[in-house]
Amino acid sequence: MAYDDQNIFARILRGELPAIKVYEDDQVLAFMDIMPQADGHTLVIPKTPAVTLLDLDPEAAAYTIKIVQKIAQAIETGLGVTGIVLMQLSGTSAGQTVPHVHFHLIPSSVHELGKHAIQMGDQDKIKAFAEKIKAALN
Amino acid sequence: MAYDDQNIFARILRGELPAIKVYEDDQVLAFMDIMPQADGHTLVIPKTPAVTLLDLDPEAAAYTIKIVQKIAQAIETGLGVTGIVLMQLSGTSAGQTVPHVHFHLIPSSVHELGKHAIQMGDQDKIKAFAEKIKAALN
Repeated sequence: MAYDDQNIFARILRGELPAIKVYEDDQVLAFMDIMPQADGHTLVIPKTPAVTLLDLDPEAAAYTIKIVQKIAQAIETGLGVTGIVLMQLSGTSAGQTVPHVHFHLIPSSVHELGKHAIQMGDQDKIKAFAEKIKAALN
Repeated sequence: MAYDDQNIFARILRGELPAIKVYEDDQVLAFMDIMPQADGHTLVIPKTPAVTLLDLDPEAAAYTIKIVQKIAQAIETGLGVTGIVLMQLSGTSAGQTVPHVHFHLIPSSVHELGKHAIQMGDQDKIKAFAEKIKAALN
């Protein structure tokens, strides 16, 4: 699928839209999902443009999963949780809503996940989770 | 968490239990989930022992995600589907049932996933999906 550089994650990467960031380097950005399925729901995205995991440059995927590991650990440590659901939806028919490859990290049980993108979360609460995750990364 | 080398995936890796394999190399094994949440549900596991993604050696994670990409593509091509849910559950409280890190690849919508491990699938049907995925890998 052709990459649409006006998608919201591309715009976040360019700084055109705000995000509650927890980690950033030259290849990857991690930020809070503003419509969380559970408290602490975080997204990790490669900066390399790609719609799905299938399209993503394998080296970018390899680097991103290492950062996913770090962020998952920081979520567990920072938020005091013991289980993380990693979810990555490739394709609109799989439920992908933003056409830039992204990994969901959700501190929850897969059996108790809230539905995605139903409503905005409490932004102050989300910011507080972000601070705890950032503190655990350092 | 300490790794239990008697878990069923460790036993599959040692050849003590059968599996419907679609791909294997010296670092990774991909095989069909025998209690599929959707037709074509495939598991990808690193051979490196680790309970969760958080415990997994980062280089093993990096290699495994590249194979996940290949298998996902083969599922789409082989089974003629256009969406893949990647799910990785770390921790029993996240819903992890087998204590060896594994990536689920499920050709489905996240909103329509069947519940996991409710019942055995039709093994002949599962084998037929495996053949199609293997053919698409070649």
